[in-house]
Amino acid sequence: MLALACDIGGTNTRLGLVRDGVLLSESTGSYANDDFEDFYAVAAAFLRERGESRVDRVCIALAAVATTEGATLTNRDWTIRRDRVALTSGADRVDFINDFEALGYAMGQVERLETQCLTPGRASGQPGPRLVLGAGTGFNASAWCPSRFGGAPHVVAAECGHMTLPLAGEVEFSLQGALSVGRGRASVERALSGRGLFEIYQWQCAQARRGPLATTAVEVSRLAVAKADRDCEEAGHVFMRLLGRVCGDLALAYLPFSGVYLSGGVSRAFAGPLAQDQTFLEAFLAKGRQADFMESFPVHLLLDDRTALQGCAEWLRLSAV
Amino acid sequence: MLALACDIGGTNTRLGLVRDGVLLSESTGSYANDDFEDFYAVAAAFLRERGESRVDRVCIALAAVATTEGATLTNRDWTIRRDRVALTSGADRVDFINDFEALGYAMGQVERLETQCLTPGRASGQPGPRLVLGAGTGFNASAWCPSRFGGAPHVVAAECGHMTLPLAGEVEFSLQGALSVGRGRASVERALSGRGLFEIYQWQCAQARRGPLATTAVEVSRLAVAKADRDCEEAGHVFMRLLGRVCGDLALAYLPFSGVYLSGGVSRAFAGPLAQDQTFLEAFLAKGRQADFMESFPVHLLLDDRTALQGCAEWLRLSAV
Repeated sequence: MLALACDIGGTNTRLGLVRDGVLLSESTGSYANDDFEDFYAVAAAFLRERGESRVDRVCIALAAVATTEGATLTNRDWTIRRDRVALTSGADRVDFINDFEALGYAMGQVERLETQCLTPGRASGQPGPRLVLGAGTGFNASAWCPSRFGGAPHVVAAECGHMTLPLAGEVEFSLQGALSVGRGRASVERALSGRGLFEIYQWQCAQARRGPLATTAVEVSRLAVAKADRDCEEAGHVFMRLLGRVCGDLALAYLPFSGVYLSGGVSRAFAGPLAQDQTFLEAFLAKGRQADFMESFPVHLLLDDRTALQGCAEWLRLSAV
Repeated sequence: MLALACDIGGTNTRLGLVRDGVLLSESTGSYANDDFEDFYAVAAAFLRERGESRVDRVCIALAAVATTEGATLTNRDWTIRRDRVALTSGADRVDFINDFEALGYAMGQVERLETQCLTPGRASGQPGPRLVLGAGTGFNASAWCPSRFGGAPHVVAAECGHMTLPLAGEVEFSLQGALSVGRGRASVERALSGRGLFEIYQWQCAQARRGPLATTAVEVSRLAVAKADRDCEEAGHVFMRLLGRVCGDLALAYLPFSGVYLSGGVSRAFAGPLAQDQTFLEAFLAKGRQADFMESFPVHLLLDDRTALQGCAEWLRLSAV
């Protein structure tokens, strides 16, 4: 069985061929959405370039809620209709999965992914769930849970970005005030996202009574990692501390004895300090009497650009039965 | 196949017979632990009273982590050895499950349980996960997730009581300070438990500069529900608001489209106000732009004393295959 795996983002679309549930890694490709009129044109170009006239099935991962007709991207004005995807690809069946669900399914094939361990001393490979979470345009998580009765693993879908941002102490209370302005509350993704990092930075500059130097989140993370600006660095510390705390809270919600995997553009921008600096890990462990228990969860950084495609492959494998 | 289901609490042990995965409701009984020397004596008395000389399997739900040898209760000095349970009951197989996992498995047979809907207008019976959470001696939750591939449902075990207590605003910031004294942090169960309710009450009295009248958590909830004391009432409001917020946060973590079920002694003590007063439900919905989305989750109060036994029955059914 030949299938097409698609990971549609706001800027780029990644595609790959899947044979019998295995992603053919040499087949994958990435396309800039701006170069195409719609998704069907991207899919047609990919299949033409790979010399495939048709596939049996299609699995599409994207940040949207799918209906029976299809789905509309939340971050681009593309509507993707099931029937038109079937027409373009020749597929009998077209499935949509949420982008974070795709990352969750990818956890079933994590040994095929490029990762970096942030807790080298910690025992890995224990049986149990895996948690994937990430800060990028927004924040979310999903958990992959092996079956206790010998069946297919289960992926728990979530909307963790909308949970309450867990803050404590006087300084963070002031940050909470800043992040809540005009919204009445501060959600997790209000801080743990690109935009969140920038708002933390603006709050930091106001606290220090200095004018902001950086103008984008990318600049804040770049200057923080390079240790080139103290306010960017401090914003980076606050971001990593909050990421560690939320990551620890979510570990308590899913008990990922088989590993926590950090994904997302902003998490990855801090790859260096996440591995070298103790801010993130200290916050992850800081659960009072449960600090020892928190050591049960190995933490990794997910470096692979093809994680969502791998998740589509795993979905195709599991749903083929 | 005849099995014995056991729900061992700190004060009482409940037992029941399970035939082919179905709890025989007329067989169930509750025993005061103080009347027995050990668990084996309780099990022997139960089987003798029911006229059963032996069972094929045993499933024990308790607040403890089981090893290959057995388990030791966290809230009573009882050790329960697998081999001695087998000897007492004649069973070939003895399984231990966590008390909240048992509640999770019970969600697979929720139609057999006594419940009260707190959101009567809200569509129920949608397919999807079910979340059970509760405040009693401590706080925890677990999620029951139907398989997407036709297999057995999955129950997600958790340690949600140790997550960060989500607080916001100036008044709650003062409560956070009070709950964190000597501990460096405030966890969810620091507030959402019997002891937590009493600490909220003490903080409320200090805020109001009045001496405390109630001396136990049970008294606080009784006086609050009876509207007989303003500090108890106010503590009850704070408790219900925090319970609603945490419940909403956890709903975002597991997306329980098929229902949220509130369990636990303290939650049940507030049954009246939870149903009549809007404090809990308003806090549950208060997720900014996601308020409409939060309406997708029907909320119920779990009134059944035999929920954990029902969970053992479901576990026995699923693990029999």
